[in-house]
Amino acid sequence: MKNNKSLKVRFLGGLGEIGKNMTALEYGKDIIVIDAGVAFPTEDMPGIDLVIPDTTYLTQNKDRIRGIVITHGHEDHIGCLPFLLKEINAPVFGTKLALTLAENKMRENRVTNYNFNCVKPSGVVKLGCFSVEFIHVNHSIPGAVALAITTPVGVVFHSGDFKVDLTPINGDIMDITRISEIGKKGVLLLLCESTNVERPGYTLSESIVGETLDRLFAENEKRRLIIATFASNVSRLQQILNLADKYKRKVAFSGRSMEKVTEAASKIGELEVPAGIIVELERNKNIPDKDLVIVSTGSQGEPMSALTRMAADDFKNVKIGPNDTIIISASPIPGNEKMIYSVINNLYKKGAEVVYETLEKIHVSGHACQEELKILHSLVKPKFFIPVHGEYRHMKKHVKLAQSLGMKESNMLIAEVGSTVELTAKSMRFGESFQAGSRLVDGLNIEDSGNMVRDRKHLAEDGVIFVVCCISAESAELLQEPVIISKGVTLSDEQKEEMKRIVMKTVRSYDVKAMGDKTELRGAIRRAFKSYVFKRTKGSPMVLPVITEL
Amino acid sequence: MKNNKSLKVRFLGGLGEIGKNMTALEYGKDIIVIDAGVAFPTEDMPGIDLVIPDTTYLTQNKDRIRGIVITHGHEDHIGCLPFLLKEINAPVFGTKLALTLAENKMRENRVTNYNFNCVKPSGVVKLGCFSVEFIHVNHSIPGAVALAITTPVGVVFHSGDFKVDLTPINGDIMDITRISEIGKKGVLLLLCESTNVERPGYTLSESIVGETLDRLFAENEKRRLIIATFASNVSRLQQILNLADKYKRKVAFSGRSMEKVTEAASKIGELEVPAGIIVELERNKNIPDKDLVIVSTGSQGEPMSALTRMAADDFKNVKIGPNDTIIISASPIPGNEKMIYSVINNLYKKGAEVVYETLEKIHVSGHACQEELKILHSLVKPKFFIPVHGEYRHMKKHVKLAQSLGMKESNMLIAEVGSTVELTAKSMRFGESFQAGSRLVDGLNIEDSGNMVRDRKHLAEDGVIFVVCCISAESAELLQEPVIISKGVTLSDEQKEEMKRIVMKTVRSYDVKAMGDKTELRGAIRRAFKSYVFKRTKGSPMVLPVITEL
Repeated sequence: MKNNKSLKVRFLGGLGEIGKNMTALEYGKDIIVIDAGVAFPTEDMPGIDLVIPDTTYLTQNKDRIRGIVITHGHEDHIGCLPFLLKEINAPVFGTKLALTLAENKMRENRVTNYNFNCVKPSGVVKLGCFSVEFIHVNHSIPGAVALAITTPVGVVFHSGDFKVDLTPINGDIMDITRISEIGKKGVLLLLCESTNVERPGYTLSESIVGETLDRLFAENEKRRLIIATFASNVSRLQQILNLADKYKRKVAFSGRSMEKVTEAASKIGELEVPAGIIVELERNKNIPDKDLVIVSTGSQGEPMSALTRMAADDFKNVKIGPNDTIIISASPIPGNEKMIYSVINNLYKKGAEVVYETLEKIHVSGHACQEELKILHSLVKPKFFIPVHGEYRHMKKHVKLAQSLGMKESNMLIAEVGSTVELTAKSMRFGESFQAGSRLVDGLNIEDSGNMVRDRKHLAEDGVIFVVCCISAESAELLQEPVIISKGVTLSDEQKEEMKRIVMKTVRSYDVKAMGDKTELRGAIRRAFKSYVFKRTKGSPMVLPVITEL
Repeated sequence: MKNNKSLKVRFLGGLGEIGKNMTALEYGKDIIVIDAGVAFPTEDMPGIDLVIPDTTYLTQNKDRIRGIVITHGHEDHIGCLPFLLKEINAPVFGTKLALTLAENKMRENRVTNYNFNCVKPSGVVKLGCFSVEFIHVNHSIPGAVALAITTPVGVVFHSGDFKVDLTPINGDIMDITRISEIGKKGVLLLLCESTNVERPGYTLSESIVGETLDRLFAENEKRRLIIATFASNVSRLQQILNLADKYKRKVAFSGRSMEKVTEAASKIGELEVPAGIIVELERNKNIPDKDLVIVSTGSQGEPMSALTRMAADDFKNVKIGPNDTIIISASPIPGNEKMIYSVINNLYKKGAEVVYETLEKIHVSGHACQEELKILHSLVKPKFFIPVHGEYRHMKKHVKLAQSLGMKESNMLIAEVGSTVELTAKSMRFGESFQAGSRLVDGLNIEDSGNMVRDRKHLAEDGVIFVVCCISAESAELLQEPVIISKGVTLSDEQKEEMKRIVMKTVRSYDVKAMGDKTELRGAIRRAFKSYVFKRTKGSPMVLPVITEL
């Protein structure tokens, strides 16, 4: 029974990023889940919309789940809620904005059976043997919290996503006082995010962006302004609204998520919208350029976003021209560089001016850099440390950073998705692994195995050739010429004729007595084809023979 | 005949990068080609190996081509030579290393009929009415030149790829003196590269990398060193060889291109290899870690490269372990970030130490930053200016940079692939466009249209469903159950059964009299299928019905 006396930390999610998206704490019969987020598909997952954690372990133990605790309202922390809550009936706890955005998701996914509970920063929630305190931190969305979780073996401090912003726009500085108190009483385990652990110094304050924007509003007083940013960065939107008010411009929101988030945030008072400032684009075509700022989605060059469509001249209500200045108030998320630069090129070609991060201080990160991480470590003073939220290389750096502050190497572990870490008041070690990983969402389908993605990659790399043979069930002779169809492969007519001859030869040479098993003939055709195609084109397309017997 | 009195600059190549890969100058009946390079495929070209310029215009005018001039030996400047020289029989002029590397390419592609002419920096070549002077510049490969081309209407100065390195490793500083003289005599047109036009200041010298490497050799004296870098960066290789000599380590080259380039460069004296320092990996497994440095390809995380395979434990002669320090002496080329970080994560998981660019000054760019570009503009003092080598956004920045130095906006143009610019001694304007663009190379095939790539993208995004129906030519009835095969689509058995019923219903409802044209029936099946699949999965796979009549 010793096993039941330890706290188990289970790393459930995070595509390539350890401890991201979803983590669970377990003691005795009680389980709590921290965050329920999604990851975005990488380039090697064509056609996949979302990546959600494999929650088999939670489903198998659903009666033991006392609650789901959300640190903030970004997709990678709330996006899996609709999927999880279809399978598990547990109460959800989070701050107002996170839950308001999560409610939108539930509606979109037509999930109606959920129990959301709003918690204010400094609030405490009791969930089974766990007591969870919400602690205000700064991040690129309001209502972000760290968690101090009192467990039977000690306190676990989870940083959430955070930075230390000494001049934040909405709300206060991170609650350093409370974190100091918790650290002073003693923390068993720190789970701390690692996104910016490779960056020295401090993350710039959100206020810096406001200063740059103010100057750009002043410099562009006769031009139309279009600002693209993340819809969820409510502080950024607040600064834009304030500047529009100062420079007497109307504001039009463009893009579905921009409209939804601003509506949600202003409804709950997180976004203060100056009276009469908002206009609808379609009804206000005659507003002079100098009196308008359009705030748009598409800061990552997403193919269907408002800005991308404007740049491609495919957006009904906004035509880009030489009197436009487009400000891209965001950094490219790794992997999106080519898309966003293609949008920038298109905007320039239409004669517009474009301001982006390489040129101006027009975006700041929401994540702590090295010195801020050191502040958190120094305040929390944990006995044990597990870095989270980052690739393996970030984990290594974060362990080194903790070492430089005096943490012993034996008191740190680098977990992976599927790892269980077991803690007592005095020890930390790996427990047994459990089923975890990623599930891929494509439209309405959830795919568990990697087969579909593997097939799609093969199709994409090499194309497909389809061979249809109608043969006589009696004589095993071809009843007509084979049909060859290729997609994603270039075959000359001559090559196709040669391939037909190969099929005919293969069928003729085939042993009639073994005819009961067409698998073998299919294999023979496939091999003959592959060798011919490789010789002629150096390609290796997927070959799919179909044999119909009549 | 006025048209014949102007100089035409034709922009033939460059996938998204204007004036990259291939440019031609034309006056009267004479044409010269500057560079013959390839581009690398972007993520939206699955399975494509190379992108080469569409050289239709050159083929149509092959009797007028007086020569092909190469600025340096990088792939994006020589890679198209084997393809071009199959169609055009023109002499090629370049420096020793460029031609040596190009000869390798000719051998690989089994092109035997070519006429290569080695030119030394400061050399002059007369080609028809053109006189081409080669001018030494610094870059990330030795033997890089700018070109001063005297034409009947004035001098055209082409920068090639360049930087100003005041402490270069192999050879001299860029020939600023000669460029000044040429500028003083008067230059009609400057074509200048724009790669780093968004970066303020100066590019660091190659020597800086040597200093960092020296320190890393000293700090890792008991460990095995593995350094990944670009095979063509001969100065980098020279520094590594010198340090290996200093620290008494043997050097093993790993990866095919590393072996080929070092062999070529040392043969022609561009790389000085200390006697007895090179070992072959497979024959020297017992060299102690501290006495060995492995120099490897794979600095971009390329899937089949030596380093990637080492990290994946799939490289016979090198097993990575805790006593290895891997130094990645390169920057990720945009689009490669995820691949290289995945290799770094794998190396860390094997317990190795990894040093890469975010952590140390372990790589420098080969391209001029803003202040160096200003130096070239100020020395050349051209009448007209066309920025080249960059995306549209870079062109815009480069035009602004030239403006800041006093160039009139009316004396600059931004060209695109397929643009012709016509110059006289007093004017510059756009001429008519001509056929230009990209051709995709997949294995041994060259694809002219975008169809194949479009198909592959569709296959990758949505998968494919094949439907085979054998019907009676007489009655138009199905002779057996339709066969349904799907790849890259998840269909349940139930869904497949339902789809069979849909096919059967569609065939039954089909007008027998119109049976002569199966296209219509195929269309009907495709439509019925697509609507069913979209309803059930929100996907839109490629549907390929095959109807065989017996």
